[in-house]
Amino acid sequence: MPTPRSLEIDNEKVYITVVDAIREEVYCQKRKGVVVGLSGGIDSTLTAKLAVDALGKEAVKGLLLFERDSLRTHENDAIFVAHWLGIDYQKKDTTSVLRAIGVYKLFPPVFWVPSHYQEKYARKKLEKMKIRFGRSPLLEILIGDGDEELRKSIAYVRVKNRIRMAVLYFFAELNNLLVLGTINKTEWLTGLFVPYGDGAADFMPLKHLYKTQIIKLAKFSNLPERIINKPPSPDLAPGITDEDILGIPYEKLDLILCLLEENTPVAEIASRVGMEEREIVLVQEWVKYSEKLRKMI
Amino acid sequence: MPTPRSLEIDNEKVYITVVDAIREEVYCQKRKGVVVGLSGGIDSTLTAKLAVDALGKEAVKGLLLFERDSLRTHENDAIFVAHWLGIDYQKKDTTSVLRAIGVYKLFPPVFWVPSHYQEKYARKKLEKMKIRFGRSPLLEILIGDGDEELRKSIAYVRVKNRIRMAVLYFFAELNNLLVLGTINKTEWLTGLFVPYGDGAADFMPLKHLYKTQIIKLAKFSNLPERIINKPPSPDLAPGITDEDILGIPYEKLDLILCLLEENTPVAEIASRVGMEEREIVLVQEWVKYSEKLRKMI
Repeated sequence: MPTPRSLEIDNEKVYITVVDAIREEVYCQKRKGVVVGLSGGIDSTLTAKLAVDALGKEAVKGLLLFERDSLRTHENDAIFVAHWLGIDYQKKDTTSVLRAIGVYKLFPPVFWVPSHYQEKYARKKLEKMKIRFGRSPLLEILIGDGDEELRKSIAYVRVKNRIRMAVLYFFAELNNLLVLGTINKTEWLTGLFVPYGDGAADFMPLKHLYKTQIIKLAKFSNLPERIINKPPSPDLAPGITDEDILGIPYEKLDLILCLLEENTPVAEIASRVGMEEREIVLVQEWVKYSEKLRKMI
Repeated sequence: MPTPRSLEIDNEKVYITVVDAIREEVYCQKRKGVVVGLSGGIDSTLTAKLAVDALGKEAVKGLLLFERDSLRTHENDAIFVAHWLGIDYQKKDTTSVLRAIGVYKLFPPVFWVPSHYQEKYARKKLEKMKIRFGRSPLLEILIGDGDEELRKSIAYVRVKNRIRMAVLYFFAELNNLLVLGTINKTEWLTGLFVPYGDGAADFMPLKHLYKTQIIKLAKFSNLPERIINKPPSPDLAPGITDEDILGIPYEKLDLILCLLEENTPVAEIASRVGMEEREIVLVQEWVKYSEKLRKMI
């Protein structure tokens, strides 16, 4: 595991540690293997790769959960990853599940709208929110007293995430598998996860690694370039990436989080990363207000 | 709160403490009120009653979540409770949600089978399990290495419970409400809850009270006899009650749990409650093997 005082990691050492931890966990909990929700992103791909190295590919199952608003490119990437790893996978479209709950009533149907228009719409919505709330809808979400429009978006995104969790566990329990989560330290600290959604799993192999460390580890373990280089996205609203939500690139964010953990003064952090003090304070507030989410788990 | 060394509680004191705690929690988390999943059982009824006394009935919403296997009597009781409390409620049939996930494929459709036959079937299934596993399917569930048939039942029950959670949170997040959970201390200690299902909530007012203490508190707060006197049931398989699953009446179970907490020797507990030592050891094992579920939360 990386020391909290540094972003530098020994890739080989970390890799072996995490692989051993997965093997140990599966053994202790008497499971036949693991299931990973493959999204086509770097986190779930690395998680599945670590699991394959820990348990062999027969013991790793991929579940591909997509719905109305998912981008087809992510689905294709997830299938590509399953083939690349050589693992069995199942695709499950959760659109009908979400429709039965009434989720899509919140936002207009987009069946006949080309995906690039959907993306434009979602991004415009996010920009509007940024203007309304200063610059961070995430902070409003964490504080929890946003207006009706924001609450609608939160409910919309979170229920999708929780349905993913319920379906993953349903599959895992039927097949005596462990659910591996894909949350990383950056998401964990900033509150960029859904309690009882992607925040829920039997074991989270990446929880102690910052996103930038995961990218290094992904390169070290020869993950396909196509997966490493795509912009991280929660794929819960069309085309919206993590960076759209955070407004700070991961390299800077991880450095800030790391320096905050070392109790570096805000002014010093600001000058070291070349950003304004109020931006550092914002990150500080994400950490502060997401504390209650971490406590829920 | 009751002392852990005794089952005796001062009803009035406990009542006021819990009411204050609910009010405090809603205030701290800046919510407009709470939502309670009303099942027609004593726990959810008492939880909603406490919330009404804490916040006023306008701030308490009831959500009635039923599905294919739910007994109509519980639904009727839940409606009765909402009227008795004078709170707004919404009914939501989650059958179509569960069908979309593929849950009902696990067990034969029972649309045309009268409910008393369904109950007979479910009870027979449980009896078979008891014979196969000695006497406690719950222990097999907690240890987690049961056979395929048991895993099917676990997955079947748990996914229903998790869908209830997802729908409750969806409703809560849309309306800026706190989700109140209904887990009690007896369920908590024995592992009679579903992680990320009914084990997931923003606040659990009854978590420090044994079931028998809840019954006393329910009488103290004048809950309808009809609710107090019905046999507790998770209502996830037709007609199966808590006691069918546990095999020990709550009065004895709570006493055993209480004495175990005081480190009373097994032999002494057995003679005090008039049961065999192996039955006390079973309760001890429920507590031991459910530890990992409590840690998940």
